[in-house]
Amino acid sequence: MKLLRVGTAGAERPALLDADGTLRDLSGIVKDIDGELLADETALGRVRAAAESGELPVLDAAGLRVGPPLGRLGKIVCIGLNYHDHAAETGAEPPAEPVVFFKAADTVVGPYDTVLVPRGSVKTDWEVELAVVIGRTARYLESDEEALAHVAGYAVAHDVSEREFQIERGGTWDKGKNCETFNPLGPWLVTADEVPDPQALGLRLWVNGELKQDGNTSDQIFPVAEVVRYVSQFMTLYPGDVINTGTPAGVALGMPEPKPFLRAGDVVELEIEGLGRQRQELKNA
Amino acid sequence: MKLLRVGTAGAERPALLDADGTLRDLSGIVKDIDGELLADETALGRVRAAAESGELPVLDAAGLRVGPPLGRLGKIVCIGLNYHDHAAETGAEPPAEPVVFFKAADTVVGPYDTVLVPRGSVKTDWEVELAVVIGRTARYLESDEEALAHVAGYAVAHDVSEREFQIERGGTWDKGKNCETFNPLGPWLVTADEVPDPQALGLRLWVNGELKQDGNTSDQIFPVAEVVRYVSQFMTLYPGDVINTGTPAGVALGMPEPKPFLRAGDVVELEIEGLGRQRQELKNA
Repeated sequence: MKLLRVGTAGAERPALLDADGTLRDLSGIVKDIDGELLADETALGRVRAAAESGELPVLDAAGLRVGPPLGRLGKIVCIGLNYHDHAAETGAEPPAEPVVFFKAADTVVGPYDTVLVPRGSVKTDWEVELAVVIGRTARYLESDEEALAHVAGYAVAHDVSEREFQIERGGTWDKGKNCETFNPLGPWLVTADEVPDPQALGLRLWVNGELKQDGNTSDQIFPVAEVVRYVSQFMTLYPGDVINTGTPAGVALGMPEPKPFLRAGDVVELEIEGLGRQRQELKNA
Repeated sequence: MKLLRVGTAGAERPALLDADGTLRDLSGIVKDIDGELLADETALGRVRAAAESGELPVLDAAGLRVGPPLGRLGKIVCIGLNYHDHAAETGAEPPAEPVVFFKAADTVVGPYDTVLVPRGSVKTDWEVELAVVIGRTARYLESDEEALAHVAGYAVAHDVSEREFQIERGGTWDKGKNCETFNPLGPWLVTADEVPDPQALGLRLWVNGELKQDGNTSDQIFPVAEVVRYVSQFMTLYPGDVINTGTPAGVALGMPEPKPFLRAGDVVELEIEGLGRQRQELKNA
């Protein structure tokens, strides 16, 4: 299923994009698309049955804002340098084990919302990423199979990054990863049953119409199952948590000087095969 | 006021410790102690008036669990190496600007709850910290006065840390800071009006009755106002967010070999002047 949330920010209603592309209202069936729903097999079964019945009310998509596809989001665990080609472009050795950093849930906006260039920023950069949405509480998982069984679904994430804040201002990367609006998510949460192989997804990103990133999750150093299993050794993952699994090559940071960092007025578009497409215009904070 | 939350985990009710040490029930006045309450002057005024009336129902404290004093906690921004003596003991130069890392809200437990030593951990360490609770949305603050006006109150935080995960396993510190139960908070959220000078608070921590940390917030490299102002340049702070402002000297990491890291059965007690005292027993995860 393609689950989504539509409406004004903070007051989104749950919806579903059905197989023929019709937007359907789920608010009569579930309160929200959130960790509680994803952990509840019965409620998910009800959604699935309603979807298959073809009888869910149709929503008029015209003029309707699309929000992030997950409400009451928990934590966002991010994996750094997780593509061979991206590690190479930044001059880093491929890491021996996953590099972990954090984004706060409050950085999440909808897939077509405005992204703000922070005040004083001269190095705002883009990163298309496969987001993994957790559906079951995960502690000390032992196998890849177990790890994948804890994944509720997948989405497109834009891990917007300020490189000066991230790298040149002391401390850990989090300082350049948590600016307001820095994590567009969606448009859809695609349930895991519709993503048979998360290691075979093309990811692309354009800036002002020019293709910048063109990767594939097959290039991930640590694949999704390994990442989920690994992270669960260090912290508990809860339903409604998200893991951003890293970005392929093609970010501004990896380009020759003068690096083409983002400015107000720029338009970023990004997509992952089967997971939909985002588009953001940059504005000054 | 000393605000707190009592009851079983996940079902705490709001309460107040009045001037003569009597526990009073706030659940007839407010739903919870959370960011929504802290941002609502009218509701806070109602609580204050009820407290002063002396007519709030008395709660029997006997056998009642004390939870974290803040519900629906947002993000936890942590400041590293923020005491001169702690920077020195770890062999680090005092940072030129605040070092920022993150803890997820799901690491928060009550002040007397069990702390879990993660599986495979041999370097679980303690850190007593002054936690700052945000009461108003803070973006790009310009002065210390403005910064302090965004602080709702203060609490004791235990920033439990796994040093191998934090330092030796690649990537940023977050990997060693987000294990389950790694952020005991409370017992109270003391409103800012009762903490006239946050830079004059003694902090102490004992392990199995032996004093290990004995510092004062006067030794902070970046004081509370500067930290809040600084962090607001990089991210938006929301009501219900918390900033852990760093730990003084005396952690296991700073001691000669063999460093006395925590093990199951150890008991940690910690306190900050005027903010109350915590006690946790360590168990294996």
